[in-house]
Amino acid sequence: MLVNGTHYRTIWMEGRVVRMIDQIALPFRFSVFDSPDHRATARAIRDMVVRGAGAIGAAGGYGMAQAALESPSSVLPARVEEAAALLKSTRPTAQNLFYAVDRVLGAIRAALPDAERARAAAQAEAEAVAWEDIEACRRIGEAGADLLHDGSRVLTHCNAGWLGFADWGTALSPIYCAKRRGMRLFVWVDETRPRLQGSRLTAWELAGEGVDFRVIPDNAAGYFMRRGEVDIAIVGADRVAANGDTANKIGTFEKAVLARECGVPFYVAAPTSTIDFSCPEGSAIPIEERGEDEVLYAEGPDGSGELRRVLVASPGARARNPAFDVTPAALIAGFVTEEGIVAPAGLPALKGR
Amino acid sequence: MLVNGTHYRTIWMEGRVVRMIDQIALPFRFSVFDSPDHRATARAIRDMVVRGAGAIGAAGGYGMAQAALESPSSVLPARVEEAAALLKSTRPTAQNLFYAVDRVLGAIRAALPDAERARAAAQAEAEAVAWEDIEACRRIGEAGADLLHDGSRVLTHCNAGWLGFADWGTALSPIYCAKRRGMRLFVWVDETRPRLQGSRLTAWELAGEGVDFRVIPDNAAGYFMRRGEVDIAIVGADRVAANGDTANKIGTFEKAVLARECGVPFYVAAPTSTIDFSCPEGSAIPIEERGEDEVLYAEGPDGSGELRRVLVASPGARARNPAFDVTPAALIAGFVTEEGIVAPAGLPALKGR
Repeated sequence: MLVNGTHYRTIWMEGRVVRMIDQIALPFRFSVFDSPDHRATARAIRDMVVRGAGAIGAAGGYGMAQAALESPSSVLPARVEEAAALLKSTRPTAQNLFYAVDRVLGAIRAALPDAERARAAAQAEAEAVAWEDIEACRRIGEAGADLLHDGSRVLTHCNAGWLGFADWGTALSPIYCAKRRGMRLFVWVDETRPRLQGSRLTAWELAGEGVDFRVIPDNAAGYFMRRGEVDIAIVGADRVAANGDTANKIGTFEKAVLARECGVPFYVAAPTSTIDFSCPEGSAIPIEERGEDEVLYAEGPDGSGELRRVLVASPGARARNPAFDVTPAALIAGFVTEEGIVAPAGLPALKGR
Repeated sequence: MLVNGTHYRTIWMEGRVVRMIDQIALPFRFSVFDSPDHRATARAIRDMVVRGAGAIGAAGGYGMAQAALESPSSVLPARVEEAAALLKSTRPTAQNLFYAVDRVLGAIRAALPDAERARAAAQAEAEAVAWEDIEACRRIGEAGADLLHDGSRVLTHCNAGWLGFADWGTALSPIYCAKRRGMRLFVWVDETRPRLQGSRLTAWELAGEGVDFRVIPDNAAGYFMRRGEVDIAIVGADRVAANGDTANKIGTFEKAVLARECGVPFYVAAPTSTIDFSCPEGSAIPIEERGEDEVLYAEGPDGSGELRRVLVASPGARARNPAFDVTPAALIAGFVTEEGIVAPAGLPALKGR
């Protein structure tokens, strides 16, 4: 997608170097982080220099390719196994990460004992993982753009944009695709407390693509829906159960209930790889609870541009910080996938495709 | 209510000085602002050193008493009229302010031409306004405490506590009253973006009173309601229409919709003076939209304790910031008033009482 008019992917490989947009620095500084070897790539995943399901998957695949390229032939078989374990240990709940690492590891094993072929296979498989992510997201955009029309006012929550994937994203991909079809769109961006991925990352993405938007407090989404100023809501997903119950960023459930109350169709955009067919329903999805400081403190540049962390709550106050919630399938009009728009009841038919 | 174990009112008068808890400094510094004359009191209202319907009303009444005490007898009649105009101009939408200023002005006029009697009448009437506010809030607490039981988990939004009134508050008054009856309570405090009155003021109040609480992102209220961890929701009100539609801090509508979805009874606590019988329904209530910076910036002390303002959104992002929303009467289980618990349909019967 576009940054100051130049096309970027979130993450890519040049020679042995994995290059990624530094998401810790965003939105206050745009910079590309160069990871010289697989250990540095593992650290970048752990430290969230790269974040988001698809982007983490691509990073894991590229990290495996780096490990193969770095290893002398005699020790390559052992080194890539170690690298796979290291990369998988960085974000223990990221399904895409395991998937990507295992795919590249499998390609390497199949090419051994020829080390040179194994290196080539690793690079090719890592690129395939990234390109499949990009292609799935692009097709999500095509399918989702059919839900939009010129002048559509879209509400989104958190950041399910191209920064979370190798490119395009999920919830925002239909917007980028519709814009390329010539539609003028407007996006209501939930700021998405506590980490503010909406006002930071989604706002940054939309500005780069030249899409008109306004950031709103999460509290105001219902207000604008009730006034009839929201035509459609599209969000991403962290995990979709087989029955369509959807785990996503905290607050998604609230917005879905309000969308039904106000007659706004509510869509979840996600590649089919996000569907966990082994999980029968939402109550089986574990919900991560994160640290209190994300609620009690805020960070950003002060007037001089220096990044500062400030306490925004009463000193000594305690907080609770569930990171995700589960939206019941009954509140979801449809899933926007690379296979097209699918109703919750249609998800099981996607198994194994 | 209690601050470090000492009982305070939000605002009171000693001699000619109006003393008020400085709400700009809270929650990071507790200090009492001394206003020496009615002009300084007007500035304190305008600058929000004192805020909240009942507290502003009390400030307006005391400001009028100051004007009467300051004025030489010969010019007193003209000076108090000027003071009334000045005090009313500070917060043009605050109904309690007009009510209080006019009541004290009426008492002064009735006592004139005897200037000494007028000064005494002004002081007495200003004290009466404040005490009536305190008494109404205390009775709201008594009525609301009957809705609670030992172990109740209460959700509240924004700050409708004692800081917004002369004492006790509205939504929090039942909690303070129930605690005095020996109940142990737990409060879920919506942080209440964008101004964070929940995590700043409500959290500060509850800590002072020794009530157990946790601050949550507004996005998480629905999550805890759905898990069955909220027994009752109680909020305040800025204006109640004759049919029970209620204007209150942005986000109240969202939480009311979620409360119904999750089977949580949703109550509005407000003195009957908040009911605007001339307003037939919520759509007639104008909604103030405030500046974007409240959404885009956050303020608080950094590690060294110095107050700093930081940008929390993508640079250049624009925002919308409606300050209030309207909750339809159908979502409200009842109004907790100084006359007891009243269903929305019962509000018209309160007119003129």
